[in-house]
Amino acid sequence: MKILHIDCSVRDERSVSKELSGLFVTKLIEKFPAAQLDYLDVSKETTSHPSALFIRANYTPEADRTDEIVNELTESELLVDRMIQAGLYVIGMPMYNFSVPSNFKAFIDNIVRINRTFKLTEAGGEGLPINKRVYIINTRGVDFTKGDVQHMDQLQPYLTAILGFYWSCRSHFHKCIHRCSLQQLKPGQMH
Amino acid sequence: MKILHIDCSVRDERSVSKELSGLFVTKLIEKFPAAQLDYLDVSKETTSHPSALFIRANYTPEADRTDEIVNELTESELLVDRMIQAGLYVIGMPMYNFSVPSNFKAFIDNIVRINRTFKLTEAGGEGLPINKRVYIINTRGVDFTKGDVQHMDQLQPYLTAILGFYWSCRSHFHKCIHRCSLQQLKPGQMH
Repeated sequence: MKILHIDCSVRDERSVSKELSGLFVTKLIEKFPAAQLDYLDVSKETTSHPSALFIRANYTPEADRTDEIVNELTESELLVDRMIQAGLYVIGMPMYNFSVPSNFKAFIDNIVRINRTFKLTEAGGEGLPINKRVYIINTRGVDFTKGDVQHMDQLQPYLTAILGFYWSCRSHFHKCIHRCSLQQLKPGQMH
Repeated sequence: MKILHIDCSVRDERSVSKELSGLFVTKLIEKFPAAQLDYLDVSKETTSHPSALFIRANYTPEADRTDEIVNELTESELLVDRMIQAGLYVIGMPMYNFSVPSNFKAFIDNIVRINRTFKLTEAGGEGLPINKRVYIINTRGVDFTKGDVQHMDQLQPYLTAILGFYWSCRSHFHKCIHRCSLQQLKPGQMH
């Protein structure tokens, strides 16, 4: 099994999401010593924002792609390859302004790909059976479960929808309010 | 009155959101000929992703800011100034992967600012009384009101929450499924 560990906090030493996702991965490796590990920090290896050419490229069938279009997709192809090769993802995810950091949205906009992660049918988009499992270690400064603020958590519903639909991923959230300890994180069923 | 017209589609000629937001603004100017107009295309004037220094700068009281911190906030200050100076915003907003384009999330992460758009109190964050009105001309390829897919519209609830809370904006959405005509857009009460 290969684990793809993704971080996106723009902080390093002071990042709680990076600290906790790192500890979560350490526990996983203890449980599965043969697992291979790939690491991606999208705050450092930040993807480009998609361009008009990128959108056109995504809709161009493979057989019709020019060199320009192939080049435009290179960064995205490499990211999708890394995700396809892994069996499980662990994402260290801070909440920035009720949602994912902008660098992570740029990443999402690069990995949603026609015929690689979903297909277009007459009925609309349909996710390909990728069936990965993703653990999202989500740190946040506010407890949105208390009081009338639940609608302000725009992060969990977004990631559940996008990774579920376009990547057929089952998402498991570990939400950490401010600084919490690893004891609060339960990796649950791992396979 | 000053109108701030914001676009974010990465397309130009083929952008429906840009075409419709432009027509909407034309109608507004016809109604209010004395209105001034400011235009921002965040697909071209794309803001940086916030950095660790930016986060620290946002939390640093004005009196304690070093030159480095002042410099880090320059881009954000100019954007907030432009938004404060306008009385009304019109945003041409395509849906990219169920939410806002990544360039617009980078913009959001630059304009949510302590003591400029909200304040921190012992009870938590509290929006300052900015009280702008925003018209969002939102184009999308799918009608999420039909069938069991409403939860996939992660754009409207996100913008409503973020602009409402951190900018005390009232958001008015005009959702356009694929190509629609301006006749379907009703500017509603304008002031």
